[in-house]
Parts: sequence; C-alpha cells; structure tokens
Amino acid sequence: MTINIDPHCDSLVAKTSLPQELGFGKFFAPLMVTAQYRDQKWQNLTLGPYAPLALDPATMVFHYGQSIFEGLKAYRNRSSLHLFRVMDHARRFNLSAKRMAMPVLPEEMFAEGAVAFCRAVAPLVPSDDVSNLYLRPFMFADQVGLGVRPSESYLFLIIGTPSGKYFADEAVKVMIERSYSRAASGGGTGAVKTGGNYAASLLSDRRAKTAGFHQTLWLDSSTRKNVEELTGMNIFFVRNNSLVTPRLNNSILPGVTRDTIFVLAKELNIPVVEEVVPIDNILRDIKGQTCTECFVCGTAAGITPVALLGEPGLPPYTLAASPGPITQKLAKALHETQRGQRPSPAEWIVRA
Amino acid sequence: MTINIDPHCDSLVAKTSLPQELGFGKFFAPLMVTAQYRDQKWQNLTLGPYAPLALDPATMVFHYGQSIFEGLKAYRNRSSLHLFRVMDHARRFNLSAKRMAMPVLPEEMFAEGAVAFCRAVAPLVPSDDVSNLYLRPFMFADQVGLGVRPSESYLFLIIGTPSGKYFADEAVKVMIERSYSRAASGGGTGAVKTGGNYAASLLSDRRAKTAGFHQTLWLDSSTRKNVEELTGMNIFFVRNNSLVTPRLNNSILPGVTRDTIFVLAKELNIPVVEEVVPIDNILRDIKGQTCTECFVCGTAAGITPVALLGEPGLPPYTLAASPGPITQKLAKALHETQRGQRPSPAEWIVRA
Repeated sequence: MTINIDPHCDSLVAKTSLPQELGFGKFFAPLMVTAQYRDQKWQNLTLGPYAPLALDPATMVFHYGQSIFEGLKAYRNRSSLHLFRVMDHARRFNLSAKRMAMPVLPEEMFAEGAVAFCRAVAPLVPSDDVSNLYLRPFMFADQVGLGVRPSESYLFLIIGTPSGKYFADEAVKVMIERSYSRAASGGGTGAVKTGGNYAASLLSDRRAKTAGFHQTLWLDSSTRKNVEELTGMNIFFVRNNSLVTPRLNNSILPGVTRDTIFVLAKELNIPVVEEVVPIDNILRDIKGQTCTECFVCGTAAGITPVALLGEPGLPPYTLAASPGPITQKLAKALHETQRGQRPSPAEWIVRA
Repeated sequence: MTINIDPHCDSLVAKTSLPQELGFGKFFAPLMVTAQYRDQKWQNLTLGPYAPLALDPATMVFHYGQSIFEGLKAYRNRSSLHLFRVMDHARRFNLSAKRMAMPVLPEEMFAEGAVAFCRAVAPLVPSDDVSNLYLRPFMFADQVGLGVRPSESYLFLIIGTPSGKYFADEAVKVMIERSYSRAASGGGTGAVKTGGNYAASLLSDRRAKTAGFHQTLWLDSSTRKNVEELTGMNIFFVRNNSLVTPRLNNSILPGVTRDTIFVLAKELNIPVVEEVVPIDNILRDIKGQTCTECFVCGTAAGITPVALLGEPGLPPYTLAASPGPITQKLAKALHETQRGQRPSPAEWIVRA
C-alpha cells in the first residue's frame, strides 16, 4: 500500500513551535497517520493533519476495550531521523492484534506509516543527545453496536510526541504490589499491549505514588510469589555479576528493550539468566548484597536504575544510590545503539 | 444536580421510527445523557441529542483502557416506563469506578440521568411483553496525554437501545474455556464492569462461535478447575432440586440478576447453594443426572437455559432440551418482577 500524504503536512510542521519543556507524551506533532479496516481489508493509509476523531457513543472501543498499541522511538542523526527496531514493533503489534481478536496489519504498512511520519516531523525533534521522537501506533475497534463480539471494523493511527526524559529522577523507587493484579497468570493478556492491562494497573499506580514510590512491581497473579514486570517496563537484577530477569511466561510483555539488552550483554560478556524470580529470594539477595544492582527498561524509559524496592510502611530494600557499574555499561551501550553510534543488526536502524 | 434537558429532545423522539426487527444493541434512541468530570467535580448533567464525540487521538481511553459501564433495563407499564434496580446498578457502577481509579458518580445523578432518559424515550419502546429499553451508562478517561496514570478528567454518558430478545435461540450452547483467561484470579478486574475484561474474552468468543457454541464459560485463571461465569452472564446449576452457583470471589461479577434470583428462589422455596464449583464435579453430576438443569442470567440475557456444556471436538454434556421446571419457574418470576407484575422490594421499581 502506498501512503497518501496530505500536501499541507510540511507547512503544518513549519508553523509549529516546540514548548520550553518537552517532557513525555504531552506535546504532539501536528500530524497523524490513519488507516481503516473495512470489509476485511486495510485501506486509505494516509499522513495528514492531527485532528479529533468523531466517534459514535456506541463505538465498541468505549465499551469492550478492544484496543492495542505500540511505543517506539526515532532518533535524530544530523538532519534525518532513524527508527529503532521498527519491524520488531510491527511484529509485536500483530501479536497483540491476534490475542485481542483484531486483524493483523501488514508489517510493511506499519513501517511505511512510521517512516513517512518521521520524515515529515523531523524538524520538530531537537538535535541534542536526550531528545527523541516517541511514536504511538495504535488500533481500536470502531464498529458501532453493543453486542459483545469482535468488531468488524478498526481504525489504525500513528501519532507522535517529540520527547525529553521519561522520569524526572535519576533512579526510581519501586513498590512491590502484593494485592492487586494487572493480568491473569495463564491465557490472559499480560504478554500483549492492550489497554486493559494498563487500566487494571492504575489503582496500584495511585497507591504507589501516594506512598512515595514511582512505579508498581507486579507479581504473578496466581501465587503472588514471583516477579513479573512493571506496568510499562521489564525489570533486571544484577546478582553475582550476572543479569537476572524473569523468564517470559504469557503474562509478561516481551520487551524490545529487554531483547536489545540481551544482545548487548552478550557483546559485553555479561551473563544473562532468564528464570522464575521469587520476590523473597531477590529481597534476601539484596539484603545479603549478592544482588547489587537493579534496573527497569522499556522504550519510553530506556534503562533506569532502581533505587529501592519496598512496600508502604515497611523498611525498604535499598540498592546502590547511583547506577552500578553493569547498569551504567548497559545504559551507555543501549543509548549508543539506539542513536546508531554502535554497530547493531542491520534491521534495527531504519532511516526515515 | 438538576439535569438540563435540551428542548429538541421530544421532537427528535417523535421523528424517529423503529426498525422492523429490534434485536439487541443495534438501534439507538436519538438522545443521550452526558456529564463531565473536570477540576475534581461532576458538572453539566444534560439530556440532549445523540451525537458523535469529538476526541483527540491521544485521549487516554484509546491507549490505557480506563473505562467502565453498566447495563440496566426499563420496562413499559402502560404509558410510562420503569427502571429495574437502578440504584443497585448505580452502586455497582461506583464499585467499578473505584477499582479502575476513576471518580465515583453520585448515585442520585446516575438515577436522575436514567429517569430523564427513560421519560423522553418512552414512545420508542414497544408495548409488547418482550421489548424493553436497555440503558448503557458508561464512563471513560478523556484526558489527553500518554503518561500512564489515572486520568484527571472523565466523560459520563447514558445511551439506550430499545431491544427485543438477546439470544435468537431458546437455549444456549456453552463452551468450557480451558486455555484463555478473561481476568486475574486475585486482585484483578473480573468483579467489575471494565472494557478490558470483555476485550480479553473476544478471542475465546470467536473460537466458541466457530465451533458451534454461543458463549464461553470461564474457569478461574489460577487453577482452571473452578467455574466462574460467562463473559456477560452468571451461571446457575440445578442439582438435587437446589440451585448451585459459584460463590463470589473477586474475579466474578456480582450480577444484579444473580442477586434477584436469590431473592426469588427464597420466595419460591428453592434452596440456593453458593460454593466453589469444580467443573469436573458438575460434568460428573450432569452425566450422573443429579445436575438436571443449567441456566445463565444477566440483565441483557434475562434467564436463558443452557442446552449443553462442551469443548470443541469432545462429546458434549447435554441438559434438558426445553427449560427444566426450576428454570421455568424462576424465569417466569423474574419476568413478572422486572415488569412490576409481582411484589418486590420498594427500591427495585423506579417509575420514570
């Protein structure tokens, strides 16, 4: 499918000025990509002005939550932008689509939309070493009707936000959630990016922030014994100079950054162990100082060190205040890889 | 809060003609109730024309699924309509709101909106003994932004659909789902009406329909041994002339119809047992003919007999082809109660 590009795109971008502080997900580029799924096929892939969507109140997405999304980034390299691992995000988008009974989107179409978007929006991405363009592809059920069944029509969009840092702080405080769940342990939706997982997390998010934490750490919902992930990030520990991270089950999101870290760790000769990670063992190892570092990772957050793990009203388990040596080494390698300053597999960097 | 009523409402209703076949959730009354949550309070409760919603593509509901809904019915009694158990639906709506980190909505406001809607829409509800008005109150996050956190603003709406029967068939075939889950067993969202639960169910819904079933029966996601509910209905069995239904845990929706059945069963001297219901025991009891009837219930479906329980490719466990005597007795009592033809607690019937 060839993308239609509205002739007003360039002038819209030219007229837009950046706010003083970019932050994350607050300022949006004035363009968007759209496509419709009608009569069992995708059509009208278009780059045009960012504009409100007019939706009937009985549109299924409002009622039955059939929605998925991706988050990926583009980085500036001199005058142009390049996308990082766009095909991996396209593939994961389709894993989400399948679990949510939604139509798959051809991966080339996903990439074509993302590339056209980046090309048009490039002037709005500052050329410093921190800023980037966060792209948000998403798809939702737009059929009108209240019967509970998979929708027959869908809307696909890409919007984007020129962004600075995700966390204001250098290291995050993580609350262990022992009561609520974000996703079912078996056969649920935890391994895909659908709205419901995030909606289920919000009450715990509020509880964490009220108690002075930044983020919630989820345990498996069946036994509440094993570490899974944060709401939008995977988690790694450094134990006896090896990386340890929960083995994927079908309630943990297979993070693209998580996977990138595996590749980088291999290059840097840091052993990686994927295993079931009981929270009690980790806390014991932090206390006994065999677990010395911990970090969270994701497309939005990059690699962010964890300052402590804890629960409201209980003494926290504290980690090194500044990033430990292994976290630092990986964060540097990740940053260079994403910015195309370090050799990586050919498919990872797609110039826009 | 006093509801504002747009002066065009009555003429809009007068101009609307009903379709030949009502069905369920396809034809919508030309009015809707709206209210906004802004600056930590609810405002602008209004009854006005049914119209599209214009939403920014970065509106949180599309991304993080923060949405809840209710389903309740109004029935015609001569010239006016009455709502059935509207205050119970208002209370459950707020239980959903709390779990999803959303603001509660004053129960009087919920009821006031529903009553005004019914009063205006009454001419569109046929006076036969099957038709009714299904009301769909819902609320979703309408803040714009991509940070994962509870929204600070929300939209509340009530739309409604004059409806006929929910199931075309007299009895339903139910597929036991042993792989997928709709909600986490502990601390998840299964006990409230949020979009994510329904989204998670759709893949199984498709699988069930492809294999010739009408609906999915969910087991608990931790052990996959115990019966929970259907996607939008609770389930009852008749075993040795007693009603048996899964005891509420926090992954089963506390159905208003389920609760109504408890009250009616008491009046009719039918014992009710709420307990953990292992699927294997129920199948054994169906085979051994100690479990002789099964039905599902909900606001949309009423009481609908189950013809069989089964799995694709395996021999089904068949129940009485026509509704059994206890199912029939309860269905009649429920129908009369909802239509105000049978004495019931004062709060249950609210005239519009």
